[in-house]
Amino acid sequence: MRPVSIETGVVKHAEGSCLIRIGDTAVICTASLEERVPPFIKGSGLGWVTAEYGMLPRSTGSRMRREAASGKQGGRTVEIQRLIGRSLRAGVDRVALGERQITVDCDVIQADGGTRCASITGGWVALKLAVNKLLKARAITSDPLVSPVAAVSCGIYAGQPVLDLDYPEDSEAGVDGNFILRGDGQLIEVQMSAEGATFTRDQMGKLMDLAEKGVAELVEAQKAAVA
Amino acid sequence: MRPVSIETGVVKHAEGSCLIRIGDTAVICTASLEERVPPFIKGSGLGWVTAEYGMLPRSTGSRMRREAASGKQGGRTVEIQRLIGRSLRAGVDRVALGERQITVDCDVIQADGGTRCASITGGWVALKLAVNKLLKARAITSDPLVSPVAAVSCGIYAGQPVLDLDYPEDSEAGVDGNFILRGDGQLIEVQMSAEGATFTRDQMGKLMDLAEKGVAELVEAQKAAVA
Amino acid sequence: MRPVSIETGVVKHAEGSCLIRIGDTAVICTASLEERVPPFIKGSGLGWVTAEYGMLPRSTGSRMRREAASGKQGGRTVEIQRLIGRSLRAGVDRVALGERQITVDCDVIQADGGTRCASITGGWVALKLAVNKLLKARAITSDPLVSPVAAVSCGIYAGQPVLDLDYPEDSEAGVDGNFILRGDGQLIEVQMSAEGATFTRDQMGKLMDLAEKGVAELVEAQKAAVA
Amino acid sequence: MRPVSIETGVVKHAEGSCLIRIGDTAVICTASLEERVPPFIKGSGLGWVTAEYGMLPRSTGSRMRREAASGKQGGRTVEIQRLIGRSLRAGVDRVALGERQITVDCDVIQADGGTRCASITGGWVALKLAVNKLLKARAITSDPLVSPVAAVSCGIYAGQPVLDLDYPEDSEAGVDGNFILRGDGQLIEVQMSAEGATFTRDQMGKLMDLAEKGVAELVEAQKAAVA
Amino acid sequence: MRPVSIETGVVKHAEGSCLIRIGDTAVICTASLEERVPPFIKGSGLGWVTAEYGMLPRSTGSRMRREAASGKQGGRTVEIQRLIGRSLRAGVDRVALGERQITVDCDVIQADGGTRCASITGGWVALKLAVNKLLKARAITSDPLVSPVAAVSCGIYAGQPVLDLDYPEDSEAGVDGNFILRGDGQLIEVQMSAEGATFTRDQMGKLMDLAEKGVAELVEAQKAAVA
Amino acid sequence: MRPVSIETGVVKHAEGSCLIRIGDTAVICTASLEERVPPFIKGSGLGWVTAEYGMLPRSTGSRMRREAASGKQGGRTVEIQRLIGRSLRAGVDRVALGERQITVDCDVIQADGGTRCASITGGWVALKLAVNKLLKARAITSDPLVSPVAAVSCGIYAGQPVLDLDYPEDSEAGVDGNFILRGDGQLIEVQMSAEGATFTRDQMGKLMDLAEKGVAELVEAQKAAVA
Repeated sequence: MRPVSIETGVVKHAEGSCLIRIGDTAVICTASLEERVPPFIKGSGLGWVTAEYGMLPRSTGSRMRREAASGKQGGRTVEIQRLIGRSLRAGVDRVALGERQITVDCDVIQADGGTRCASITGGWVALKLAVNKLLKARAITSDPLVSPVAAVSCGIYAGQPVLDLDYPEDSEAGVDGNFILRGDGQLIEVQMSAEGATFTRDQMGKLMDLAEKGVAELVEAQKAAVA
Repeated sequence: MRPVSIETGVVKHAEGSCLIRIGDTAVICTASLEERVPPFIKGSGLGWVTAEYGMLPRSTGSRMRREAASGKQGGRTVEIQRLIGRSLRAGVDRVALGERQITVDCDVIQADGGTRCASITGGWVALKLAVNKLLKARAITSDPLVSPVAAVSCGIYAGQPVLDLDYPEDSEAGVDGNFILRGDGQLIEVQMSAEGATFTRDQMGKLMDLAEKGVAELVEAQKAAVA
Repeated sequence: MRPVSIETGVVKHAEGSCLIRIGDTAVICTASLEERVPPFIKGSGLGWVTAEYGMLPRSTGSRMRREAASGKQGGRTVEIQRLIGRSLRAGVDRVALGERQITVDCDVIQADGGTRCASITGGWVALKLAVNKLLKARAITSDPLVSPVAAVSCGIYAGQPVLDLDYPEDSEAGVDGNFILRGDGQLIEVQMSAEGATFTRDQMGKLMDLAEKGVAELVEAQKAAVA
Repeated sequence: MRPVSIETGVVKHAEGSCLIRIGDTAVICTASLEERVPPFIKGSGLGWVTAEYGMLPRSTGSRMRREAASGKQGGRTVEIQRLIGRSLRAGVDRVALGERQITVDCDVIQADGGTRCASITGGWVALKLAVNKLLKARAITSDPLVSPVAAVSCGIYAGQPVLDLDYPEDSEAGVDGNFILRGDGQLIEVQMSAEGATFTRDQMGKLMDLAEKGVAELVEAQKAAVA
Repeated sequence: MRPVSIETGVVKHAEGSCLIRIGDTAVICTASLEERVPPFIKGSGLGWVTAEYGMLPRSTGSRMRREAASGKQGGRTVEIQRLIGRSLRAGVDRVALGERQITVDCDVIQADGGTRCASITGGWVALKLAVNKLLKARAITSDPLVSPVAAVSCGIYAGQPVLDLDYPEDSEAGVDGNFILRGDGQLIEVQMSAEGATFTRDQMGKLMDLAEKGVAELVEAQKAAVA
Repeated sequence: MRPVSIETGVVKHAEGSCLIRIGDTAVICTASLEERVPPFIKGSGLGWVTAEYGMLPRSTGSRMRREAASGKQGGRTVEIQRLIGRSLRAGVDRVALGERQITVDCDVIQADGGTRCASITGGWVALKLAVNKLLKARAITSDPLVSPVAAVSCGIYAGQPVLDLDYPEDSEAGVDGNFILRGDGQLIEVQMSAEGATFTRDQMGKLMDLAEKGVAELVEAQKAAVA
C-alpha cells in the first residue's frame, strides 16, 4: 500500500473538504450542503448524497481534453461518479440526514492509478466534515454516518495479487477490481473485471483478503483526519 | 431462472442477429462487421469488439424520454454499453479476429429486469453468428471465440439469495449483482453492489454459486441457438 | 403492394402496440397515454397526439450511427416524426379525446423502403388500441378516432408509376411521394417530390389513383388488426 | 398575390445575393461558391447545391429564441432547409455545374407568411447570379440552370382556395400547401397538408391551378431581377 | 471615420429597430420588449437590458459556418454580446425602466470591420425607439436613457493611430481597441489589446483622443435617427 | 495588494506547473507542450500558446454547476480563457518558440476575486518552466519569452481607486479593470468597464498608476518562483 495522507480544510468555502494523496495520486474532495433535495424524494423526509468527478486536463501523463470544452462528460467519468455517489450513500442513514442534499465533488489534481478509490475515501472525509457542521449547529441530532466508507483497488499483476495498483501496474494488470467496504468490514460494492483475461473464484478470494487489509489502513487515516 | 428463448436471424441486414427473451425481457441483438478498426489499434493486426445499448422509449412501465431526443446517452446507458463491450472482448482472441471491428447493438424492446445480462448473453450469439460468416468465407481461419460469454443477475431479495431478478425483485433488492462468466466457468466480471444496504463475503459466495448455475443454463441456450 | 401483416400487443407495458411488417420493412409502434398535455394547450380541454421515430442502428444495409450517441436527431428523423404526428392528429377529434396526450413511438427494426408510411399505418393501430382502453375504462365516452389513417408511398420508377416502393426502387425513383389518407377517402397529406427530375399534373393523378388503392388495402389490414 | 420585389447585390461578399420581399415577408438570400463538394460525391464530377435557413429572432411578432443560443436548429428549420435545397437541386444540371458546391443561405429579416416559398424563389435568384459569375469567368461553359425554380403557398381559408397566404391566413387555414414549380410548368415538389381538417382531390386541383398562376408571376419577377 | 447612416423602423414587428451602416459594415438592430425579467432580479423593481449578436453566414468574405448548425455560439460571439449588453446597461436607469426586459438583437448583414461598435451604436437607437414607445404609452414616466451610448474602434495601423478600422486595417493592426462612451463624454468601457505587439500609455492617450472625436460624430447620427 | 505566493512543480506530469495564491484566491496552472500546432499555422514555422480556464465547482461561496455536466463552457469562461491566451501570446516570440504548441490550463481551486489576473500571472510561470525545459533540452536555442507577463485588477470601490480587488470589493465596485503588462512596463491589454456607472479619463489614469505598481510586485514574485 502506497503512503496515504489526508489534509482537511483545503477549500475555505466548502462545508467539508480535503486533499487526499495516495502515492502520487492527489484528489481534492469537497462536500457542499444544500437545503433542498432532488425532485424524486421531495417531501419524503429523506436526505440525498450525490457525487461528481473530474480530472484536471494535465493530471495525467499527456494532456486530456477538458470535458467542459468537449461538451460532455465521458463514459468513464459518468461511471465513476455514479460509483462514488452509490458507495457513499451506502454508509448514510438518510432518515437521520433529513431532507437535505450533500454533493461531493472529487477533482483529480494528479493521477497515478486508483483515482476512483481515492475519491471515495477522501469523499467520505469531506462528507463527514460537512455532517459534523450540521451536528454542531444542531441541525441534525444523530450522526447519519454510521461507519466510514473506504475503497481500494487490487489486481493481478504479473501473475501476483497486488494491493493498491499504481498507474503502470493498473494498465498492465489483466484483472483488476475495486473494493468498497465500510469500517465495520461490511461490503458495499465489489467490482472485478478482466481486460483480455479471466479469473477464478480462488483468485477473487485472495484479492478480497488484500482489500480488507488495505481498507482497514485507509479507515485509520480517515479517522485520524476527521478527529 | 425464468424461461429463456433465443431466436436467430431476426434482422436480415446484420451479419449476426437474435432476439433473446428471458422472462418478459426482450432484446434485439445485432452484430455489424466492419473492415476497419478504431484509430488506437490501427496497424496492430488486432481486432476490436464494441457494443452499444439502447431501450425503446416504451420498453418500460412508463414511457422514458428517447435519448436521441434529449441529446445524450444517460449515465446508466453509458455504463451498460461499456460493460457489454468489455465482457464480450474478454471472450475474443483479438489476434485470431484480425484487424476488423464488430459492433454489437443491444436494443431492449421490452424490459422486465436483467436487460444488461440478456444483452451480453444475446450479444454473444449475434457475435458468434457474425464470426461464423467470417469463418465460412475463410476471411479468418481459426475461431476467435474460444468460449461463450453469458451473464446473469443475482441478488438478495427479502433476505434470500435469488437468481435472475425480474424488475419488481430488482427494484426491491438491497443487494444485487451481475456475474459474467465464460462457458468454461472462468470469471470475466463480477459486480455486486448494495443500494441502502451492505453484504458479507458469505453472501457473496452464495450469489456466486447461483450465478454459476444460471450461466450454465444460458450457455446451453446459446449453444442451441448458434448450432 | 407488398404483403402486409400487423401483430398487436407486442409490448406489454404500452397502452397500445403493434409490429407492422410491409414486405421486409418492420416497425414496432407503441402508444403511450399520459394524463397531461403540452403547455401550449393546458386548460383548453383539448387532447394531443404526438409521435417520435427512430431506427435501430442495424435496421439498414450498413450500420447507421445511433442518434443517441451522435447527440441529436438527424434532419430526416425530425421531418418524419413531425409528419407522423401531424397525420395522426388529422384523424383525431381532440375534443372527444379530452385533455390528455398520446405519444406514438415508431421504431424501425428492419428497413426496406416505406418506413414512414408503415409507421403512420402501424402508429394508427397502436393509437386505436390505446383509445379503446380509454373507452373501455369509460375515461372517454365517444371514440375520438373517426376514421383510420393510413399511408402509402408511390413513385415513378423506370418510367412507370409504382405502388409501395421498396428500398431499391425508392433509391432509384426520380419522383416519389407519400400519400396519407383517411379510411373514408379524404386526403390528409400529399407530398410529392422529385430528386433530379420533375413531374406533371397527369403523373400526379396516376400516383393518386394508385395511392387510393393501396390505402384501401392497408385500412382493411388495420381494421382486422384492431378487431 | 401580394406585391413582389427582388433587389439583387445586397451583400457585397457573396457570389450572388438578393433581398426578396413578398408582401411584408423579407428574406436575404445569398449564394456562396466553394470549389469543393461533400464527401459522398467527391470524384464523381457532379456538383452540389445545398441550402440553410434561419430567422432573425425578431423577424416574428414576438421574439423567438435564437437557434444558435438554444444549441440546435428546430425541427421546422431543418425541414425547411432540406426542402429549399432539394427544390433548387431539381432545377440544376449537376454535370454542367461541375464538381463544386453552392450553398444558398436564406435568412428571414421579417416574416409574414410564406417564408419558405420566398426563400426558394429568392434563393434561385442568388443561385443564378452566382452561376452567371462562373459562366462569365468561363469556369463552366453551359448554364446548369435550365429553368427558374419558384414556389408559392396556397391554402383553403374560410372555405375558399387562397393564393399566397400571409401569416394570419396561414395560421387559420385548415389546409395549406407549398407548390414548387419550374418556369416551364414542370412540378418539382407538392406538399399539401391538413391541420385539423382534410381535403379532396377536387380541392387539390383548385389549389394547383392557383399555384400555377402564382408561380408564373414569380418567374417573371425572377427573370427581371437577374436580367 | 467612414460614412455613417442609420435607417429606423426596418423590422415592423420590433418595438424598436434600425439598420446601421458604417462604411461597408451593415447591422440590423432590433429591440424587443417583454414584461418579465430574468429570475435573479424578479421582484426587485429593476429593469434589465440584454443583447444577442449574430452574423449571417455570408456577411463575411468567405462563408462562415452557421452557429445554429454547429450547435453553439463561438467564443467571439459570446464575448461580443456580453459587451453589447453591458455597455447598453451602463446608459440605463434601471429604476426608471421598471421591472421589464428589453432584448437588443444585433445581426450583421455585411461585415467590414467594427461590427461590435456598430452593434452598440445601432443597438442604442433600437433601444431608444422601444423606450420611446413605453414613454408614449405612459408605461413609464421618465426616460431611463440618460445619455446615448456609442462605440468606436481605434487602433495602431502601420505605426499610426487610426480611427474606425475597416476589416483590412483591423486584421493588420498590432494594437486595437474598442471605446464605448456616453454622449456626455463619460467612459463606459475601454478595451485595448495587442496581438503580437505591445503599447504605451502615451499611445493609449492618442487613441482615446481619436475615440472621443469619433463617438461625438456617432452620437450626432444617433440623435438625428431617433428625432 | 494581498500577499502573493507561487509554488512551482505541483503537478509532476506537466512540463511546467505552479500553484499561485493571491490572498484567498488559489489557481493551479500547468503548461503542456505538444509537438504540433493548430491547422491555421501548420507549416508556418511559428509556435502557438493557448489557454483554458476552469473553476472547481466548490471554489466559490455556493457550489456552481460543473461546466462538463452542463455540456458547455459559460460565456464568462470563454471570455477569460481567450484573454489569458491572448495575453500570454503577447509575451512570446513565436518564431523563437518554433512550430510547437503550449497549452496553459488554469484551474481555480479557491476563488476570492481576481482569478483571471492570478491565472495570467501564474500561467506565465508555468509557461516559463516549460520553455526552460525546451531550452535545457536544446530543442530551442533562444528564449522566446522576452519579458514576464502579469496582470492585476483595479477598481473604484466606495469612490476610491483600489488595487487588487477581492471578491466582496469586486462585486461592489462600480468600475473595475484588468491590466495586463509586461515586466518592462509595456501594456498588453487594458480592460476597464463600468457596471451601472461610468468613469473619466482622469480616473483611468489613477487606476493605471496603481496597476503599474501592482504588476511590478507580481513580476518580482514570478522571477523568484522561476529562479
